[in-house]
Amino acid sequence: MRFTSERRLDDGVLEREFTLGEIPGILWTPGSASASAPVPLILLGHPPLGLRKMYPRLVDRARHSAAEGFATATIELPGSGDRPRWPAAEQARADLRRVLEAGEPVSDEIVDALVLPLVDKAVPEWQAVLDVLLSLPEIGGPVGYSGGVISVGVRLAVVEPRIVAAGLFAGSLVPRVMFEEARRVTVPLHVLLQWDDEGNDRQAALDLFDAFGSKEKSLYANMGGHTGVPQFAGDAAARFFTRHLM
Amino acid sequence: MRFTSERRLDDGVLEREFTLGEIPGILWTPGSASASAPVPLILLGHPPLGLRKMYPRLVDRARHSAAEGFATATIELPGSGDRPRWPAAEQARADLRRVLEAGEPVSDEIVDALVLPLVDKAVPEWQAVLDVLLSLPEIGGPVGYSGGVISVGVRLAVVEPRIVAAGLFAGSLVPRVMFEEARRVTVPLHVLLQWDDEGNDRQAALDLFDAFGSKEKSLYANMGGHTGVPQFAGDAAARFFTRHLM
Repeated sequence: MRFTSERRLDDGVLEREFTLGEIPGILWTPGSASASAPVPLILLGHPPLGLRKMYPRLVDRARHSAAEGFATATIELPGSGDRPRWPAAEQARADLRRVLEAGEPVSDEIVDALVLPLVDKAVPEWQAVLDVLLSLPEIGGPVGYSGGVISVGVRLAVVEPRIVAAGLFAGSLVPRVMFEEARRVTVPLHVLLQWDDEGNDRQAALDLFDAFGSKEKSLYANMGGHTGVPQFAGDAAARFFTRHLM
Repeated sequence: MRFTSERRLDDGVLEREFTLGEIPGILWTPGSASASAPVPLILLGHPPLGLRKMYPRLVDRARHSAAEGFATATIELPGSGDRPRWPAAEQARADLRRVLEAGEPVSDEIVDALVLPLVDKAVPEWQAVLDVLLSLPEIGGPVGYSGGVISVGVRLAVVEPRIVAAGLFAGSLVPRVMFEEARRVTVPLHVLLQWDDEGNDRQAALDLFDAFGSKEKSLYANMGGHTGVPQFAGDAAARFFTRHLM
């Protein structure tokens, strides 16, 4: 992992951009973090819109998490930002735009083509980044995953035993095969659902919540669209992580 | 209102039993409450199983609320405890037992007969009690309603303008007519749903949540049966009231 930039935010949070092989990312650590008191880590998931576009919301989540004593990290998802596209994903995005504009239902084929390759590529990348982050003296663990793409969070929760709690954002299309994977999730879950999310199938989100195998799982549904998550819902997610990672 | 008993709990909370006409009830005020600093009030709803049976859970909620600075009050619901039964309700309860034992679906007729007269009788009683409680120097307002019977909470939220926030427990059968009333609710809502509540229709609870007219409404679903509400869900409801009543 190579740190390519470093700066202190006004609240003392240390923000470092990094690359690991082809994977760009950002690491935020609380101002108080030091090698003598390593802190737990939250992986910040986000939709595949590019880190530059997502940065304002991500740094806001990072600052709030740092105030609670967490390090946070995020990566540029494969196929987003300046990372190379792959033709099948471009095709799937074009197909999705076309059916949405035509007001047609989104077929399973489009959802699979859009999401499954992203999950297959992103999850091993998250794991590679996690290997390195946990080797840093200022980061201890345990580790949580927070946000979307929800299918990435589900796969990570299944295959990555270092993730002990997940706060998932039910705001993206979910391939049918992920419902099977959801049954194998056992870590505590806090699932956020925006009740009127224009880009999301509410019933699918409820079905996915029902499918999760976790003994402790909470669904917190609030009013508003995809980006309208109220502040108190962010606070509730923070308390979930504090309960399980601190 | 006549206070019939008074005692201090070990945490300083003042517990007073009262009667107002034929209505028995209990008022809890924080140890710190005084006429010089009147406190907001939460009405504690509960299922029609009798105050004596419900007391341990109610006093627990009262203590937690008092610690946050709230007075709380509850009443013996009409037809519960030592209060006179009415034949139609007894018949509806017997009908409900019969269909549940036979594994049959609960008909709309049974739900209506069970719940609607209870709502019609209980809501004016709550309002009469509220009139007197708000005249006490140690109680100021604003006022919230917390708990079940959810149809009682819905009707109160519609007809009683002094109630400015409601934390409802989606744990009871809901007459169809209440879905119409739900559309007229506008106060902030925090709806608690136990995902595996054996006595509750999950889909009806989701439909009712969808029907509420409130701009701010949250659904917090957790695992477990009717009485298995996790402590962190109680804490979340407490934060909802603190946000809206303090």
